[in-house]
Amino acid sequence: MTAPINVGIVGGTGYTGSELLRILARHPQAKVTAITSRGEAGTSVAKLFPSLRGVMDDLVFTTPDESNLTDCDVVFFATPHGVAAAQAKELTAAGVKVIDLAADFRLQDLAVWEKWYAQVHPSPELVPSSVYGLPEANREAIKGAMIIGNPGCYPTATQLALMPLLENNLIDVSDVIVDAKSGISGAGRNAKVDMLFAETNDSFKAYGLNGHRHLPEIEERLAVMAGKPVNVTFVPHLLPMIRGIEVTVYANLTQDISAAELQSLFEQRYANEQFVDVMPAGSMPETRSVKGTNICRLAVYRPQGRNKVVVTSVIDNLAKGASGQAVQNMNLLFGLTESMGLETIALLP
Amino acid sequence: MTAPINVGIVGGTGYTGSELLRILARHPQAKVTAITSRGEAGTSVAKLFPSLRGVMDDLVFTTPDESNLTDCDVVFFATPHGVAAAQAKELTAAGVKVIDLAADFRLQDLAVWEKWYAQVHPSPELVPSSVYGLPEANREAIKGAMIIGNPGCYPTATQLALMPLLENNLIDVSDVIVDAKSGISGAGRNAKVDMLFAETNDSFKAYGLNGHRHLPEIEERLAVMAGKPVNVTFVPHLLPMIRGIEVTVYANLTQDISAAELQSLFEQRYANEQFVDVMPAGSMPETRSVKGTNICRLAVYRPQGRNKVVVTSVIDNLAKGASGQAVQNMNLLFGLTESMGLETIALLP
Amino acid sequence: MTAPINVGIVGGTGYTGSELLRILARHPQAKVTAITSRGEAGTSVAKLFPSLRGVMDDLVFTTPDESNLTDCDVVFFATPHGVAAAQAKELTAAGVKVIDLAADFRLQDLAVWEKWYAQVHPSPELVPSSVYGLPEANREAIKGAMIIGNPGCYPTATQLALMPLLENNLIDVSDVIVDAKSGISGAGRNAKVDMLFAETNDSFKAYGLNGHRHLPEIEERLAVMAGKPVNVTFVPHLLPMIRGIEVTVYANLTQDISAAELQSLFEQRYANEQFVDVMPAGSMPETRSVKGTNICRLAVYRPQGRNKVVVTSVIDNLAKGASGQAVQNMNLLFGLTESMGLETIALLP
Amino acid sequence: MTAPINVGIVGGTGYTGSELLRILARHPQAKVTAITSRGEAGTSVAKLFPSLRGVMDDLVFTTPDESNLTDCDVVFFATPHGVAAAQAKELTAAGVKVIDLAADFRLQDLAVWEKWYAQVHPSPELVPSSVYGLPEANREAIKGAMIIGNPGCYPTATQLALMPLLENNLIDVSDVIVDAKSGISGAGRNAKVDMLFAETNDSFKAYGLNGHRHLPEIEERLAVMAGKPVNVTFVPHLLPMIRGIEVTVYANLTQDISAAELQSLFEQRYANEQFVDVMPAGSMPETRSVKGTNICRLAVYRPQGRNKVVVTSVIDNLAKGASGQAVQNMNLLFGLTESMGLETIALLP
Repeated sequence: MTAPINVGIVGGTGYTGSELLRILARHPQAKVTAITSRGEAGTSVAKLFPSLRGVMDDLVFTTPDESNLTDCDVVFFATPHGVAAAQAKELTAAGVKVIDLAADFRLQDLAVWEKWYAQVHPSPELVPSSVYGLPEANREAIKGAMIIGNPGCYPTATQLALMPLLENNLIDVSDVIVDAKSGISGAGRNAKVDMLFAETNDSFKAYGLNGHRHLPEIEERLAVMAGKPVNVTFVPHLLPMIRGIEVTVYANLTQDISAAELQSLFEQRYANEQFVDVMPAGSMPETRSVKGTNICRLAVYRPQGRNKVVVTSVIDNLAKGASGQAVQNMNLLFGLTESMGLETIALLP
Repeated sequence: MTAPINVGIVGGTGYTGSELLRILARHPQAKVTAITSRGEAGTSVAKLFPSLRGVMDDLVFTTPDESNLTDCDVVFFATPHGVAAAQAKELTAAGVKVIDLAADFRLQDLAVWEKWYAQVHPSPELVPSSVYGLPEANREAIKGAMIIGNPGCYPTATQLALMPLLENNLIDVSDVIVDAKSGISGAGRNAKVDMLFAETNDSFKAYGLNGHRHLPEIEERLAVMAGKPVNVTFVPHLLPMIRGIEVTVYANLTQDISAAELQSLFEQRYANEQFVDVMPAGSMPETRSVKGTNICRLAVYRPQGRNKVVVTSVIDNLAKGASGQAVQNMNLLFGLTESMGLETIALLP
Repeated sequence: MTAPINVGIVGGTGYTGSELLRILARHPQAKVTAITSRGEAGTSVAKLFPSLRGVMDDLVFTTPDESNLTDCDVVFFATPHGVAAAQAKELTAAGVKVIDLAADFRLQDLAVWEKWYAQVHPSPELVPSSVYGLPEANREAIKGAMIIGNPGCYPTATQLALMPLLENNLIDVSDVIVDAKSGISGAGRNAKVDMLFAETNDSFKAYGLNGHRHLPEIEERLAVMAGKPVNVTFVPHLLPMIRGIEVTVYANLTQDISAAELQSLFEQRYANEQFVDVMPAGSMPETRSVKGTNICRLAVYRPQGRNKVVVTSVIDNLAKGASGQAVQNMNLLFGLTESMGLETIALLP
Repeated sequence: MTAPINVGIVGGTGYTGSELLRILARHPQAKVTAITSRGEAGTSVAKLFPSLRGVMDDLVFTTPDESNLTDCDVVFFATPHGVAAAQAKELTAAGVKVIDLAADFRLQDLAVWEKWYAQVHPSPELVPSSVYGLPEANREAIKGAMIIGNPGCYPTATQLALMPLLENNLIDVSDVIVDAKSGISGAGRNAKVDMLFAETNDSFKAYGLNGHRHLPEIEERLAVMAGKPVNVTFVPHLLPMIRGIEVTVYANLTQDISAAELQSLFEQRYANEQFVDVMPAGSMPETRSVKGTNICRLAVYRPQGRNKVVVTSVIDNLAKGASGQAVQNMNLLFGLTESMGLETIALLP
């Protein structure tokens, strides 16, 4: 057994932070040596997250100053946009790898980034060498990176749904529709009236129709896959459940490919991907089957035999959509088995 | 005050039946005089539905034979497909009006009906004179009808979302997408493992991708509005909540009409419709705001200024999507104020 | 028809405020003429609560100064503790009746009040003539009151469960256990991390074991019923649902009274109470059957024939547990039919 | 590494069966070699439970006849009451250990068993040597047993709440109250109208007040702990959530022991129990913190300093309340580390 990877987490009081802790606590080759929070410095993580009692009783939040993050092998940022970019230079200069769960390294087009995130990018010079951390698209580049931009939750589910179609030039890229639905944990662990139980349970709505930050990320990454611009209509919705994303993707076929051929195409594309599961023809993935896991489940349809392809894709927004994928990236960065620490089976029921 | 309308309900043990009872119990001009159920004959409705204790303590389920439905002024069918059509001839011959909450009179094209419902239509001769009961589209015809085909839940939300666009020839009818989500009460009050709480809570999935019976209904009625065939991709999903439907509709604009003009178009179209509420520009309807009510709330968007129009529409599947709309139709049939008995305000929270 | 009652609401942006609006909007003899909120002054109530669109489109929040509350016939306080007591003197001096939905007039023992509410009572001289607004216990006194202390939610469900037993001296008052469970709306419409959907859904816990403010209210009122002190162990719990309270009450019988006699006792005690429904022997009330209604449903048991009596009691915490009961009190204050405006039937499902 | 334990599961299509599969799939020393179901024979477990796709793709339900259960080292029964007792003789004669997740071996008093389970016990001669499988009470006896009666869910949470008090003779055993609440998965994976999502969500009720089968189990086991009969009032309730049990236990103290001493007593009693976690004084366990885990979390209170002790105890009804505890017992039976395969951390949120 090799020496464990020393892991730092910046901003570990939110949901992506607690999910990182849950996964890393059982990771055989990683050890969380520092976790920072200005607001909770001095509090043990097991006090804030009682599910960690008996598991991580010694880990305590510290201020960023106390944390000696440069002693870590890798630092995860579970912070607001802009924080990772501001600190990445110092860390990478010290040889520390950086995995940002926010958006600082998701877009290569900085003009687009600055428009949608309404701030000047803190370290534009680091962006070109950073790698977008979707292993199913970018595995080799990830292995050699110093900075990973961990994908957004909606973009992860969307890209995996469309990748086989775009790589094979099978759909009209001028008109792709992504109807997306997310559980409420996607809004984070912030005190907002809109996210109270009494405001969100037993209800459903669309939101973000005037523009959601995951739209430019989706369009930039799909364009890379397609080799040309892709025009996406993206409408997210809020589900009355804690975890889980489903996206239903609609596109027009540019070739006459049968449902059986589409099924086969998807199965082949993902045959060697242990975290992407193509459901058998005629069945349908449900979000609960991936809850707490790093798995994306997909089904592909050609309804009524018309020239529309429909793909439904489910992930856990906090796992494959955030912290699980971040650990998958960490495993790649350090040459570990890609699934290490990510073998959880979803509770059913 | 005139004599009350004598109402019969056939098959009142399901959710559309209990919702009819809830509404009619407070309707100032209607009186439920007969309710049939083979399985529950002899049971009081208040025993089966405790919410009716103190409200309808004398009403008891009877067998169809005992019920003397021909003495009623109107009979609602809350039954499986085929039952209303089998009994409508005798009732209408006796002067009794019929409102079918199932699908027997929703489609004019009998070949399509027989294909999707997998049975021979029991009374094809009654179909041509029956009227599709969407008041916002068909108000005058409804007033003079003997048989009303009460619309499906998804078709109601979808038609109200698209009506202003189709009537004004603003969208490409060859490619309309309807991404629909329904609460679980839409599956009815039947003992099925798939609809158990432990199977459906905290989860979400698409279903019916190989063909849902509401697709031909949607396409037939949209074609009437458009004056030409409309091609719809329809994907329903199952929401972890009891009541509520949301549909997000996507279509390509054939004219360059601004978001403000779209907003104005919708507001004008529905200015005199008390059960259709166009939300202010920039806001979004949520299903809870219509729960238990006969209201459809809509919002219209043109995301990113591209040529796609997106409409989100919410209803209560058991109210405007079934029993509320059925009572609205009853009010029209008998010359009553259209909103009589339908003034409930949604609980919030 | 007489002139409508002019109603003012102070602090109408929370859940008891919105519930008052929902009920009063359909009350045939009341008109909300003023509603105050410092934070939302200038906002229409229909903007904050979209369920009121089309119902109360002209009502706008105003600052307390603008509101001319002394022109009202009655003012409801849906405010933090202490506010009603501070304003009641001026209002009652102007002939305006006051119904406080907070705790300022729930306790006659001011020392106890000041201990549990950790403040000096703003108007102790008003307390003796104020009336505790539980109509089933205090109907005649309520009719003549100027100030009503509207009961707490847990205390309402608890008192109705115990009243027949205490009035007939059937239980040992030294040891009464109240195991209470409430939906999350009881925590109010405040931005707190603990009440987020992602923190409360799919979970359950006890809370308040070191002392909940409803304990002294319960003990004081039960003592009035019993004519002697009553010792209560009160443990509230938080339910993953929006509305509804259930209390299960346990007490030792001091007489050998059969289950059938207990059933009969409860039925007789509440025979003339339209808002208290004793369930048939062997059945069990569920919270959904009272959601949105002013009804308390009860069942009484003597398990295994031992000398323990168990009563289960359900109400809607925002209706009979707050705003519904407040309107019931208003009806009594103004000589109206007691159930006016309170005839809603619960949605089922 | 030793040869794996060959495990058979009888009746694996319900929730305790699927939970066994989830746990055993990741157990380093166990291998499920047979799983029986008459109804699903020929179906793969991954088809019935999609969460097992990619994990147990080769395991297929077989009929009991095909299964050669006598070749197993241990057989779990996740069956209706009476099945395990009927088959245990043959299996144990063949040297196969039996863990029954139903009630056949939970009671030593067969007259009580036959009264509450309304059948003749199929193998009364096996009962005396069978062992009640609560490791915290019975660890040594379990290690040497051939037949384990795995405890019921409510009895597990209740016994762990009361054990320190009864073992130390601190409470009045004539009057113990257990107010218990369970998620809906406790009702099993059976098609019943009462357990539909639309019947149970957003509602709460008591049930079983005329007698629940866990009452005699609780009373028999508490009597063993106390060394004398214990009189329990047991009222279960149904929670609108999938997994989780909370019990709040009330008893009268027979000695003047302070809250701090009670806290210390509980902490000491469970200091070496890795699956029992006593929460710090003043805090409260919530069911979500144990979901999917084998942990019981407890808090002990003495409210208002009166002579009543209150304990709140939470478990996952399918894990520590059923299949998790069954695997804990298997580990003890085969001399493995007691926590093997049971290290899952609860998802939070």
